[in-house]
Amino acid sequence: MGTAALFYWIMLAGVALYAMTGVLDAGRKGMDIVGACAIGMATAAGGGTIRDLLMDRPVFWITDQSYLLVSLGTAILAFFLHRVIQLPPRLFLILDALGLALFTVSGTQLALAAGTPWLVAGFMGLITGVAGGVLRDILCNDIPLIFLPGQLYAIAAAAGAAAVVVMHAAEFSHQLAATIGFLVAAGLRLAAITFKLHGPEWQPRGD
Amino acid sequence: MGTAALFYWIMLAGVALYAMTGVLDAGRKGMDIVGACAIGMATAAGGGTIRDLLMDRPVFWITDQSYLLVSLGTAILAFFLHRVIQLPPRLFLILDALGLALFTVSGTQLALAAGTPWLVAGFMGLITGVAGGVLRDILCNDIPLIFLPGQLYAIAAAAGAAAVVVMHAAEFSHQLAATIGFLVAAGLRLAAITFKLHGPEWQPRGD
Amino acid sequence: MGTAALFYWIMLAGVALYAMTGVLDAGRKGMDIVGACAIGMATAAGGGTIRDLLMDRPVFWITDQSYLLVSLGTAILAFFLHRVIQLPPRLFLILDALGLALFTVSGTQLALAAGTPWLVAGFMGLITGVAGGVLRDILCNDIPLIFLPGQLYAIAAAAGAAAVVVMHAAEFSHQLAATIGFLVAAGLRLAAITFKLHGPEWQPRGD
Repeated sequence: MGTAALFYWIMLAGVALYAMTGVLDAGRKGMDIVGACAIGMATAAGGGTIRDLLMDRPVFWITDQSYLLVSLGTAILAFFLHRVIQLPPRLFLILDALGLALFTVSGTQLALAAGTPWLVAGFMGLITGVAGGVLRDILCNDIPLIFLPGQLYAIAAAAGAAAVVVMHAAEFSHQLAATIGFLVAAGLRLAAITFKLHGPEWQPRGD
Repeated sequence: MGTAALFYWIMLAGVALYAMTGVLDAGRKGMDIVGACAIGMATAAGGGTIRDLLMDRPVFWITDQSYLLVSLGTAILAFFLHRVIQLPPRLFLILDALGLALFTVSGTQLALAAGTPWLVAGFMGLITGVAGGVLRDILCNDIPLIFLPGQLYAIAAAAGAAAVVVMHAAEFSHQLAATIGFLVAAGLRLAAITFKLHGPEWQPRGD
Repeated sequence: MGTAALFYWIMLAGVALYAMTGVLDAGRKGMDIVGACAIGMATAAGGGTIRDLLMDRPVFWITDQSYLLVSLGTAILAFFLHRVIQLPPRLFLILDALGLALFTVSGTQLALAAGTPWLVAGFMGLITGVAGGVLRDILCNDIPLIFLPGQLYAIAAAAGAAAVVVMHAAEFSHQLAATIGFLVAAGLRLAAITFKLHGPEWQPRGD
């Protein structure tokens, strides 16, 4: 199996994982199967969809419906089997960190390949990684979790995206830039979970 | 009047009906005329707009502003006259079921005509039928109603879309596929209201 | 400095101002720096982004990343320095009225130049002026402020957009149409603040 094929399967695995997190949130909100599928699919495909709309590219799951099939199938399975199949929370967080890093790096490289300016490219990577979760929270009528104080998430993704952008500017190979970007994002996210690293918080006016 | 013209007028009627439901929700939230028009128009045009953005087609109400005129005009009328003109709730539900079926079938056929894969086509039909209501609920700061347990709504639309997709694959005529799809979606929705049919609900973990 | 350059700098100032309002709202919600930047950027760029997506134009901040740099930079500064630097509330409202008028007029003219029908053009101007604030409120999990009873905001913008559309139809020069549209929108908004002008409110059914 070549690198491209491996990458394709890893992306599908990431989509399935994100869909699963969406379904669990839908369940917590007491939604039925329609809500579970909608939230699951929005979480899985939302980031890439918003990126593609902004960049005026064909939306990735319209061209290749495997992504839709996988996210819908995962959502239905997770809806019916969530009491039987359970991932340990620790494993869940680790897989989510890998998915975050993967989506962010791939989105950044895709934007760089399309010739967008550097800040736009990093921002597209960040959107690919985190906008699905934001869409999930909006559909669940919550304040997006990543906007609230907590262990580094979007900042870890942004650091990974920045690493890719810098290495691209320094003309390193795509593979090396992707690898380093992935390690930075995933590593920082896992470190944030382990060592409880937080970003700067709001300092209310002391009156 | 030819079939195309008849279809056009039916679509405008559907847009007006959806706009009306949006205004009533805006009123329930205590919004002013700006909110009423915004929610009315989002409900009426939201589904088709999201479909067109995803499929990279010209947004339907930009090409032909009749849809915008009808939804805005209906919203303003409904805002000022809602105490005078009232539809009986039963009639309202029936008209809404017809609108749902009409929008879903037309969206599915439009996507099939554009050559999208089958699951994408059905999903586009579903979005055309229900995404306006989801957008309405988000703008009203509610959890989308169709995601919560209740009488079949999105599932009825999905069944109609599936009927269209299957009949398209079996090479039936467009007219027949549209008719059957419409009857499936509208029939299932009306049956759901009459017989209180529900979709699968979330089974919380029994700890 | 030519008119085009002046206009460009005024637009960047408007973007910075809108970003600042977003950050203050994010702070009120207890968000961290990620939330502040996201809400700031969504407020600043949301309206123009939605306009560009609907009209199938290249999104303005992808072509020229200055807008992204300015909104992100302003958001970060406002996040850390909001206790030090404060705009008097009155000045804030005046600047916001000028930004509203500027964005609305520029959006309307942009749509007219692209040949959209008149109601669509006015609506695009309105979206450019107010949709960023609507997006901000959705991301903050609030009902959009401009949908609730209060001093004229969207109606002031709509009046300015209407003035531009009418003057365009009457074949006045672009400069004159823009000036009058700007004065109508800003003037009406400032009058609404000063004299507490409200739009029509919902009349609940008296049962």
